[in-house]
Amino acid sequence: MNTEKTGKWDVVVVGGSAAGVTAAITVRRHYPDKKVLILRKEAKVSIPCGIPYIYGTLGDPDKNLIPDALLEANKIDWQVAAVESIDRKAKTVSSSQGVVEYDRLILATGSLPTRPPIPGIDLEGVFAVEKDVEYLRRLQKELGNARHVVIIGGGFIGIEFADEIHKNAGKPVTVIEMETNCLNLAYDPEFCDEMEKLLVSRGVEIKTSTVVKAMEGNGRVRSLRLQDGNAVEADLVILGIGSRSNADLAKASGLEIGATGGVAVDRNMRTSDPSIFACGDCTEKVSFFGGHACLLKLASIAELEARIAGANLYGIRRESAGTLGVWCTAVGPLALGTAGLTETAAKKLGYKVVCSSVEGPNRHPGSMPGAASTKLKLVFEANSGVLIGGQIRGGDSVGEMTNIVAACVQKKMTVEDIATFQMGTHPALTASPIAYHIVNAAEIADQRLRKGT
Amino acid sequence: MNTEKTGKWDVVVVGGSAAGVTAAITVRRHYPDKKVLILRKEAKVSIPCGIPYIYGTLGDPDKNLIPDALLEANKIDWQVAAVESIDRKAKTVSSSQGVVEYDRLILATGSLPTRPPIPGIDLEGVFAVEKDVEYLRRLQKELGNARHVVIIGGGFIGIEFADEIHKNAGKPVTVIEMETNCLNLAYDPEFCDEMEKLLVSRGVEIKTSTVVKAMEGNGRVRSLRLQDGNAVEADLVILGIGSRSNADLAKASGLEIGATGGVAVDRNMRTSDPSIFACGDCTEKVSFFGGHACLLKLASIAELEARIAGANLYGIRRESAGTLGVWCTAVGPLALGTAGLTETAAKKLGYKVVCSSVEGPNRHPGSMPGAASTKLKLVFEANSGVLIGGQIRGGDSVGEMTNIVAACVQKKMTVEDIATFQMGTHPALTASPIAYHIVNAAEIADQRLRKGT
Repeated sequence: MNTEKTGKWDVVVVGGSAAGVTAAITVRRHYPDKKVLILRKEAKVSIPCGIPYIYGTLGDPDKNLIPDALLEANKIDWQVAAVESIDRKAKTVSSSQGVVEYDRLILATGSLPTRPPIPGIDLEGVFAVEKDVEYLRRLQKELGNARHVVIIGGGFIGIEFADEIHKNAGKPVTVIEMETNCLNLAYDPEFCDEMEKLLVSRGVEIKTSTVVKAMEGNGRVRSLRLQDGNAVEADLVILGIGSRSNADLAKASGLEIGATGGVAVDRNMRTSDPSIFACGDCTEKVSFFGGHACLLKLASIAELEARIAGANLYGIRRESAGTLGVWCTAVGPLALGTAGLTETAAKKLGYKVVCSSVEGPNRHPGSMPGAASTKLKLVFEANSGVLIGGQIRGGDSVGEMTNIVAACVQKKMTVEDIATFQMGTHPALTASPIAYHIVNAAEIADQRLRKGT
Repeated sequence: MNTEKTGKWDVVVVGGSAAGVTAAITVRRHYPDKKVLILRKEAKVSIPCGIPYIYGTLGDPDKNLIPDALLEANKIDWQVAAVESIDRKAKTVSSSQGVVEYDRLILATGSLPTRPPIPGIDLEGVFAVEKDVEYLRRLQKELGNARHVVIIGGGFIGIEFADEIHKNAGKPVTVIEMETNCLNLAYDPEFCDEMEKLLVSRGVEIKTSTVVKAMEGNGRVRSLRLQDGNAVEADLVILGIGSRSNADLAKASGLEIGATGGVAVDRNMRTSDPSIFACGDCTEKVSFFGGHACLLKLASIAELEARIAGANLYGIRRESAGTLGVWCTAVGPLALGTAGLTETAAKKLGYKVVCSSVEGPNRHPGSMPGAASTKLKLVFEANSGVLIGGQIRGGDSVGEMTNIVAACVQKKMTVEDIATFQMGTHPALTASPIAYHIVNAAEIADQRLRKGT
């Protein structure tokens, strides 16, 4: 319930998005008797990954909310309050609404969209992707009047925004990406190429290997000046170039901050103050592979961390294995998914890899309704034969197939484990058992491993 | 290629359906230099699980074939030949086409539909589900003229046949099932109930807890006499009451036969003759759970066994972990899936279990296109917290979600492993990470395990 402004709670969570909500629910599950309060700055909370779909498929920011009913069902109190400071000695949090006492505190303060220091970035008509319903509604209104939309950054958010806006309004949309491919950090080039071709075929213009040097206009943005000197017309610009951890509150409270700017946490999601845990986009992360710093920010990662933090508050029981990295992207009929390392990423980290790709329908026979050509690529470490990553291109099946690969990577399954994986199949739901992608790709990788190629 | 009638091959495979084809491809992959021959009795090979869909969705037996192109692509020879005998001493196989020599033999002779000794079972109009294209075509022709179709047996095959026939032709279709529920051996009752309700709502009549005592008619079947004395009109009857291993050739060759009538094999899929391996429906199977005899017959199991047999021919490298049991059923918009043990099956085997069920859409927000309410039930062993099974009810996502659960069961993941499972999510492809079914069901089971309930 939306609660009293002051008082004492056993557990106070700062932040009410993916990580904060999941942390609170996890506390409720593991510590049923504790009083739990969420302090959040938003009156309504947007589902982070659903934001691009507001501008086409969903049609309204109010159709993309994390429902407060979830908090009520879990007996979690909340206040709409801007948190100002933490007094760690007194164990209190001061906000625009008052002062609350805590026994355990969870920071889930999220991230802030990157706003690069490009000349003209403060012109009217330049939007970042803020997770704020009123801001998102204003963007929607301005999109209605815009004549040429430019998205800076061809990552997940960028291309999903581009397609939704173009699909909905039919107006020109251009994506500008500094790398050689859109989605370059998320997928190997052969998958990026397919997505770019689809976007172009659907009417989105893509400019890769170029950088915006300046935004020009008189009060309102009118065009973008590129590195090569050319100009691109634009009366509405959306920045989709990533985000940084919002660790300001933690920093001001004297908590340790990590090398990449996130709140420093141990594998139990505990900060440098044993009464304060942190989870989600605001935290410093390490990779499942080698334990290097990891800059991935995804709702699914945030919520895993929330499940670890929430369970550990009054007795450590969970430990992070490091961030694996599992994600999907969908545009129209085409979906891409990655679990673990791409071939590119693995090689960059110094792995010697053996890869195998298979392609076939996700139904059997291929004439069954809903069949989509589906391509799977597996990446194995060449010496041990352990699976370290997989990518999938296809239709609706991609989401859960990616999670099968995720399970295999997490359990460090070898090529042999996967070749003898016991799967179920059905004509209307999956590929044929003869051609089941994950098993077949393992068999092909096995041939290459035996040949030493 | 369709090949010479006599000669010597390194590897001869008897049977050209799911197990035989996969065994041959596996041999090609693991032993690229070996000459491989398939002897099969069918000119064309039906995809076994696709057979019900011939009578509605697909519309023709020729649209449900395992393509011979698969054999050509893998340089596998084949003959259409009825195998008559094996001379194990001479290492030869005699068939309707001649005599071939082998170095290694793989038996993949499949199963035969059960034809119970009911009076009248030989009347015209009574069909079993034979995997024979011409037989299936004859059934299709007779279905065109039938006025009242009865399916005996409400298992996978029975209900899929019932819905496809009713959907296609609109004529009355009745399913007769001896158990209290259709699909009783495959799913817990709450899932069976949902499927029965759907079938009834689509116009299929279901009679459970009753047995056909006699089939009546003059030359052609006209009605069925039930246990309670009532009669059911029927001018076309389809038997969907299971199948038995076709181990006749193995038996006649003096190979050991298992307790349930299948070809006896060790965990490497080797028969009592070290030069002869067997795989698929014809073999005796043991369960992943406790190693008991297991009567499951599924194409996916057959092909796993084929991958084990094929790889082991010239040096043992693979061992079966026992049959896990992973399957799905789909009727119209509703799909069910099971991996491992149902609650009912687990209790029958003597397990003390803790179960948890969660329900929610497979998209987020739930208003995204393609969203289907999806229910997941997990079954954990109560002392160890190890996952031993899961069931899913929903839409298209069920197939691959079932395989995620299958991966978790195979790797003996605990409630804690699954609660901290690193999955990926996407609005257009999966449930929300807050409500991701498998993780949430584990958290709920964990609460029950801690309470000891």
